[in-house]
Formats: sequence, structure tokens, C-alpha cells
Amino acid sequence: MHNSAILLVSCPDAKGIVASIADFIFKNNGNILTNDEHGDEASRLFLTRIEFDISNFTFPLADFASHFSSVARNFQMDWRLALSSERPRLAIFVSKYDHCLQDLLYRHQSGELRCDIPLIVSNHPDNQRIADFYRIPFFFFPVTKDNKAESERRQLALLREHKCSVAVLARYMQILSPEFIAALGSQNVINIHHSFLPAFIGSKPYHQAFQRGVKIIGATAHYVTQILDDGPIIEQDVVRIYHRDSVDDLIQKGRDLEKIVLSRAVRWHVENRILLYGTKTVVFQ
Amino acid sequence: MHNSAILLVSCPDAKGIVASIADFIFKNNGNILTNDEHGDEASRLFLTRIEFDISNFTFPLADFASHFSSVARNFQMDWRLALSSERPRLAIFVSKYDHCLQDLLYRHQSGELRCDIPLIVSNHPDNQRIADFYRIPFFFFPVTKDNKAESERRQLALLREHKCSVAVLARYMQILSPEFIAALGSQNVINIHHSFLPAFIGSKPYHQAFQRGVKIIGATAHYVTQILDDGPIIEQDVVRIYHRDSVDDLIQKGRDLEKIVLSRAVRWHVENRILLYGTKTVVFQ
Amino acid sequence: MHNSAILLVSCPDAKGIVASIADFIFKNNGNILTNDEHGDEASRLFLTRIEFDISNFTFPLADFASHFSSVARNFQMDWRLALSSERPRLAIFVSKYDHCLQDLLYRHQSGELRCDIPLIVSNHPDNQRIADFYRIPFFFFPVTKDNKAESERRQLALLREHKCSVAVLARYMQILSPEFIAALGSQNVINIHHSFLPAFIGSKPYHQAFQRGVKIIGATAHYVTQILDDGPIIEQDVVRIYHRDSVDDLIQKGRDLEKIVLSRAVRWHVENRILLYGTKTVVFQ
Amino acid sequence: MHNSAILLVSCPDAKGIVASIADFIFKNNGNILTNDEHGDEASRLFLTRIEFDISNFTFPLADFASHFSSVARNFQMDWRLALSSERPRLAIFVSKYDHCLQDLLYRHQSGELRCDIPLIVSNHPDNQRIADFYRIPFFFFPVTKDNKAESERRQLALLREHKCSVAVLARYMQILSPEFIAALGSQNVINIHHSFLPAFIGSKPYHQAFQRGVKIIGATAHYVTQILDDGPIIEQDVVRIYHRDSVDDLIQKGRDLEKIVLSRAVRWHVENRILLYGTKTVVFQ
Repeated sequence: MHNSAILLVSCPDAKGIVASIADFIFKNNGNILTNDEHGDEASRLFLTRIEFDISNFTFPLADFASHFSSVARNFQMDWRLALSSERPRLAIFVSKYDHCLQDLLYRHQSGELRCDIPLIVSNHPDNQRIADFYRIPFFFFPVTKDNKAESERRQLALLREHKCSVAVLARYMQILSPEFIAALGSQNVINIHHSFLPAFIGSKPYHQAFQRGVKIIGATAHYVTQILDDGPIIEQDVVRIYHRDSVDDLIQKGRDLEKIVLSRAVRWHVENRILLYGTKTVVFQ
Repeated sequence: MHNSAILLVSCPDAKGIVASIADFIFKNNGNILTNDEHGDEASRLFLTRIEFDISNFTFPLADFASHFSSVARNFQMDWRLALSSERPRLAIFVSKYDHCLQDLLYRHQSGELRCDIPLIVSNHPDNQRIADFYRIPFFFFPVTKDNKAESERRQLALLREHKCSVAVLARYMQILSPEFIAALGSQNVINIHHSFLPAFIGSKPYHQAFQRGVKIIGATAHYVTQILDDGPIIEQDVVRIYHRDSVDDLIQKGRDLEKIVLSRAVRWHVENRILLYGTKTVVFQ
Repeated sequence: MHNSAILLVSCPDAKGIVASIADFIFKNNGNILTNDEHGDEASRLFLTRIEFDISNFTFPLADFASHFSSVARNFQMDWRLALSSERPRLAIFVSKYDHCLQDLLYRHQSGELRCDIPLIVSNHPDNQRIADFYRIPFFFFPVTKDNKAESERRQLALLREHKCSVAVLARYMQILSPEFIAALGSQNVINIHHSFLPAFIGSKPYHQAFQRGVKIIGATAHYVTQILDDGPIIEQDVVRIYHRDSVDDLIQKGRDLEKIVLSRAVRWHVENRILLYGTKTVVFQ
Repeated sequence: MHNSAILLVSCPDAKGIVASIADFIFKNNGNILTNDEHGDEASRLFLTRIEFDISNFTFPLADFASHFSSVARNFQMDWRLALSSERPRLAIFVSKYDHCLQDLLYRHQSGELRCDIPLIVSNHPDNQRIADFYRIPFFFFPVTKDNKAESERRQLALLREHKCSVAVLARYMQILSPEFIAALGSQNVINIHHSFLPAFIGSKPYHQAFQRGVKIIGATAHYVTQILDDGPIIEQDVVRIYHRDSVDDLIQKGRDLEKIVLSRAVRWHVENRILLYGTKTVVFQ
């Protein structure tokens, strides 16, 4: 593990961007560890993620903005700095299905996910036992039509109190209100949808897939926007099915897909590997 | 290569079907080589494909119907017999893109596809040279709005003349009329669509996929029905794409997918491995 | 879930095998649910797995052998009958790594693995907590060179006491003695090896793979024989790696592979889907 | 298509490498299009591939070495510059199997492979017709034990005459002599081996795989060194096989693998995406 910083930049494409950033880091005694970029031809945007060792950096990272501002201004950069020592704080939202929850907590505990998970929110009491095993506080909100708005307000307060900026919907079977999503901000709510989007939007996608007779099923992790199943896609994967597979088999095979796709998306998010541009994501690996 | 017959049966599920068929074959001195079945719980249908060696069969296969009729009647079977020595006759329809055509002809020539391809139909003259290389007659129909109906009539006449019962649309960029499809009959027109159906129905699916920001693209081979891109799916496959991939890269990666998916579908068709039930297919492998 | 029996047969290939078995089942009022077979051309063996509904079977399944013996004798069958209501009893052997253990217990609890797991054996105390969570007795054997033979004897006694016929080595970092393997019998010890066998036999396969510069790594589940990493392969799968992946990344990616490959092998074993012939397996799915 | 140059650099890791190169390109009015690097922790090497637009470059690229020398010296760089307008010249070596040859020529013609293929060398006359179709000179060398050394000398002369620096062995069933390989130099002979190396080294790998009962087969493209099947791996891929697959089926499935794996390797080679370090490759994509 390096003592490093990650600089994420998005700006109009121009000559000299790489040179200016690399030069800035070099002059301040940073050492570039990895350097990924993408020039999007359609939008003429330049996107980059640079991780650099800061062991001998010449000024405290807290002052980065003031030192970097002239470079940033020159190229009209939209930028963000993250430290590898900072651990993002995530709240997991879950209903009854426990496979994604279990998988996230297992990976978290084994060190694969470099984040803190200070709390689990659920509209069912069922997964308390798993939360206890992993020693993570579990908050049960029996959401109904009548108390939904109130529940969401209390959930947001809880997230604020625990300094969680990100909500991971690990098969959370409630549609979040636009207000809730707006309060967390774009790119801060990650969902797993159990189909290969944009196929089979909405409810019961495995039933839809079975009905249509597809030969492959999929799962999609995406950032949540106010339009259902329409947010920027982070990751997708698929698995082959056979004529002997019933809907229940699809659901079971899908469990393995869902958990692996969601875990990858969460990992890339906490490692600051994902940049949004328009309605799409770049994932730098 | 065995001297064999393939019996395809679809009937309401009941006890004794396997025993009756196996007994019939055994008593007439056939030897079962492979035996696949599928019981579809939703429709309560029993589907089976039995290949048996007929080297020492006790009666000529031409008389199969009369001998088998009592078994078939007992179980209300919808059945069909094919001989491995009979080679289905396929017409390939193609426009300018040559990758699927090239792949089918290469596999045909190298013995992977046990069928005859007596002719190629095209609405562009471009692929004449490939047809010549593989020594297959090439018929050019410069289809326009005005002569489309007339062209289709002449194409059907050509297929009849060459005893082709099956049309393979190997990236044929014309929508066939309902009359044309009806004339060939269901399960006799195979198309390759360059998306993971039901995502990205219609035209320019790679552009649609690029726009949506999916992480995986696909291709789908299906039987053509009168509703666009809606027929029973035979085979699908997918390939991962990356943010550096432009639409042109998607098209290029897609070429490899399309040809492999279409070739599999054609192969399974000519080997009598595909049974339709409702709007779905079973592929016995 | 059907009330069914599974008949596994291996015999020299001959005409009439399918007919005889199907007829026997039909006459005794069983209903064939699935029927898979494989004729191995090299060994001229016929292998089959037939699952049939026994709700209205005419005689108690306990008497199957006596009724079936004439059919079996006719074709020199090596056969075995299992009831879907019988749950095989498995002991899991584990060391410090917990990913395979965790995955097996999770799938067991969620109903994917239709078996009983009456005990876990380990040469380290670390995984007691997971065993407790899933409420499965955990037996700690601090194996050393000196007490290895004695430990194995006590482990075997424990298995006998708990009526476990099968040992699943879920990353158990001890080489079992020939006596131990012989005591359980062939096809009763399942191991997961963390490479794509036969590549990288022996210890530290991820280090070997990293050193060789392969582009894909794999995992292999196999039955254990007395030759290291040489037993009949049940299942394999692979994952792509990249130049940025360190040995630690390989180990981490490999964890996901190992657990999925081992879980599939265990599932197929407990569902009586695996037939051995020579040094190879058929898996009927 | 950009008018671009590709700079490939390998040097001991140090601070300021990226900044120095980026600054050099920027000051000479180049525009960085893509920039990939890899820091290999074991060897402490820094490897990079930078593609930059040279439309407005301030000096002729022929003078690059003299201008870049001070940067290169500073960091002890091992470097190479390629122009996207330069097309590498490849000779294809083939025996009787035509699938890899066919695939390479098809991709070459359709613009996927940006190289020239001035000649095909074969120890069998069979593939003359394919060469003619693609209008590429075909040279037949009936290699025997006695004339092998002489044949290789004449082949090398032919390559020199046609300014081919690279030989692609597209299922060429002759083992090249150390002298031949040395004459072309490392990283200039690409071979396709029909197994997932290091499994099944040597002859008849599909037979070996069938015998061992693996569940997946593979193919490996690698640079040829003087040790059989031991050179740096460029690309590998795999496909699942089933118990019904005979050795012939493996060979047929393998054909699709071999051609796709070899084509990828050739493409990456001609696009200057492959860097060697020790016995391994980095492929920048």
C-alpha cells in the first residue's frame, strides 16, 4: 500500500494537459504511480486519473487546491483529489435477499473493499444476524406508503450523523424518492439491477428474461438517477442459461452475478476509479 | 459419421414416452446414439431428440411414418424424422457486409456445416468474388421500393427451383415482407441481429449501445417472424467493450460475435438440434 | 422438488439399454423426468443418469436391487440408485483461508446444496466463528508431522461417527495420506486446486502463474487420488489477468474462482450428476 | 486515423519520467492521444507507450533521436519510435491447416490489421488458392530433413528481399532452427500453440487435453524463443468443452480459438502495443 493521492480531472481536450499535471507533480516531489486517461471524441473531453506517491511531497495535501489552481484554471479543469489513506463511508441498504449484503461484508472484512461501512439500513428485520456477525450497526425501518417520506428523512439524517456520503442498494426493494437521491447527489447512490440493462427494465426481470427465451442473463450496477434503471452504467456481466433452467434457476444463477457485479462497482467507486461524463462512466483500472 | 436418423418429437407430457420410443427403435434393430429431452413445466410439453444408428434397421426409413403412427397417435406426438445422410439446402442472403457470408462459406467448405448451399442472393453485387471463390452461384437483385415485391417473388421462385427450404440472412439489410416469410414458413428463416436482444431492437444497435454506455455488447441469432427482431432466439453471445472503444470498434468487435453466433445457429439448425415451443427454442447439443 | 430417484448406470455399450431401463421404469409406474447418457467411443462404455418420479412407484425403492437385477445382469451394468430425499453427508476440511468454507456454508444455508454438513474439520482454530454462525460443529486438530497419522485416524473416526462419507477439502493445506484417501474410497474426497490443471501442479500455483506470465488463471475441482493434483477433474474455470495484477491480485481474483468452482463440484456431487470412467468424469446437467 | 507517432520506453523507475516525456512532446507541439504505463515492482522497471499526434510537430520525426537523446540519457531509457503511417511487413508461414491463414488475410483485407503482408511461405502447396484470392505471393518450400537448413536460408533471404522483419507462424508445422530465430531476432517470430500453455507443451495438445479430461481448452500466442513453447506469452483464450466432444470436436473448437488468439497477437504487435520485460509481455490496449 502506497501513501498516495489520486487526482481525477475532466476538462476540454487541449495540448499540454498531461505535461502540465505531470510537471506539477514532479516539481512538488510526487512520484506518479499510475496514469490513465481517456479522450472522448464525441464530447471533446479529456478525462484522467493520476495516482502519485506523496511520501516526500513538498507541501501538505490540504493546500493542494491553492497550489494547483493555476494549472486547473488554464485548462478549465473539473477536478477532485482523494487520498488513499481516506476511506469513503458507505451505508448499505438491503431488504430480505442477503446475497449482495453477505458478499459486500465478506469482501469488506477480508480487505478487498477499502472503505468504512458504519451502518446497514433495511426495511426488513431479517438481516440483523448477518450485520451482527460482521459487527455493523443495523437499522430497521418498516417502510410503508404512509411513512415512506418520513422514513427517508430519518435515513438521510442517519447517514449524515454517520458521515456516510454513499448509499449502496444491495437488492433494496424500495424505489427511492427523487428528493432522497437529490439529497445524496449524483454518483453517490449505487444500485444493482438484475438484468442486462437496457433489457428488462422494471420489476421481475428474470421472469421477463425467461418469458422471452434469452440464452444469456445479466446484471447491471449503475448510479441511480431519477429515471428508473436509467442511470450511468458502472459494470455489467452475464451468465449463460439453458433450457432446463427454470425461473428459480435463473434467480439462483443471477445471485452469483448480482453480487459480483455490485462488488466490483463498489470497489471501483471507493478506489476513485469512476469518472462520469454525460450519461456514461469511464472506469480506470 | 454414423448412418443415423434423428427423431424430433413434441407432445403433451405423459408416462411411458421414452419407453415407447426406445422400445420401438430397439425392436426395429436401431441403436440409440444420443437421447436428449426436455420437459417444459409451464406448457407441460415433452420435447425430445433421439439419434439412432440405422445400419441394421428392419424396414426402410421411407416407411417410418406408417410403422411409427401407432406410437405417435398414443401420445399425440408432433414429430419429424431426418436422416443424417440428407443435407438441408440453404440459401444465404447477404448485402455488402461480408463477414458472416465468408465465415459460413469457410465453415461449409471445411465440413463444419453439413448442408448444401446451392445459391447466394444479394441486393448488392459486391460479394460475387467470394461466391466465385467458393464456387457457389450468386444472384444479384438490385432491390428498390418499387421492385421489392417482384424481387421477393423471383427470389422465392429461385429458392424453389434450387430446392432450398431455408433462408439464412447473413447481415441482409432488407426487411422481408410478411408474405415472403409466410411462404418459407416458420423456423425456415434465420437472421442475425447485431445486439443482445431484446436490448437495442431496430436499426443501428451498436450506435444505440454506445450511446447508452453499456459495458458489454451482444449478437442474437433468431428465427424470423413477422414482428421485427421478435422471433424465437436460437443463440446469443456477448463481448466486453471498454471506454476507449469507439462505435467503429464496437462494429468491428461485433463482426466476430455476429459470425460466430450465426454460424452456431445455422449449424444447430442443419443438425436438427432445434425445437420450437411457443416463442422459445430448445437447442439439444 | 420432485419425489424422485436417480439411477446411475455404466456398462458396455449395446443395443436396447435405454429401452430396457425406460421400460422397467414405465412398467413399475415411474415417470422419467430427465434422462442423460453418454457413449464413450474410446472405452465403448455407455453411461447414463435417469431421474424418475417415484410418487406412484409399484414397489418400495428398498427392493430396487432385486427387481432391477435381471436388467442389470443382461447388460453387465455397474449401477447405483440414489433418492432425491436422501441428503449426502459431507465433512468440510479447511485451514486458515475461509473463502471456500464461507461460500459453501452460505450456499448450503440458502438451499443451493442439498446435503447435510454435520461437521467441519480444521488444522487451525481460526474458522470457529464462521462455523458457529452457521451452527455447524467445528473440530480443531493441530496437525504436526508427529501426530499426523493419529490425527487422520481420529478424523476418520469422527467422519464415521457422523456418518459422513464425503470429505470436501476447501483449501485444506495438508496432504492427506494414501491410507486416509483409501479409507474414504475413490470419488469421496473432493479438492480445489488453485490452478488450471495440469498447469502449475504443486505449491504456490499463483506465484508460478505470475512468473510464467500467463494471461489467464484458473482453478480446478477434482477427486483426490493418491497422486498429487492428478485425480479426475470435475470442474474448471478461469479468469483473465492483466499486467497491473500483482501476485496478491492473482490470489484475490483466484479466491472468487476457487469458491465458485468448488461449489459447483460439490453441488454436482451431491446431486449425483458425476460419473467416473477411467480417469475422467462425465457431469450430467 | 490520426497522423501519430508511438513512443515505447522501458527504463529503471524514477521520479519525473512522465513529466519529462510529456514536456518534451508538448514543447515540440505534439498532442498526446493515449498514454499507458506500467511500473513493474519486481524488476523496478517503468514501461510506457505514448501515442501523440504529430500533425504540427516542430521538427521532422527522422530527427527524433537527436532531439530526444538528452531525455533518454537522463533516465537510461531503452526506447523505440514508430509512426502510425509506417506499416510493419509480415511474412506468414503456414502448413496445411488454413484457418489461421484465412482469418489473418480476411482481417488484413478488411483493414483490421494495419500491416503489409508481402508473402506467404509454406511447406505444402495446398494454400496457394487462398493466397491467390487475397493476391499475396505464395512460396512453396518442400522442407525435408535434408534440405531444412538450406530451406531456412532461402526463406530468410526471401524475407530480407521483401523487407519483412516479422514471421507469423500460422500453424506452421515445422520447428524453426535456433539460427533462423536468431536471424530474425527476439520479438519478431510469433507462434500460435494450440493449448493453454504451460499445459500440454509439445505435440498433439488436443489429444493430451482429451486424455487428461480437462473441462476447458485453450490457445496461446507467444513470441518464439529457442526453447519449445516457452517464449513470452502475448495472448491466451479458452473455450469450454463437454463430455460429448471427441478429439475431433476439440480440434474444431480449437480452430476458432487459435485464429482469434493469433489475430489479436498480430494486431497488437503491428500496433506496437507489446513491450517485453524479462520473459513476460505487457500489452497496452
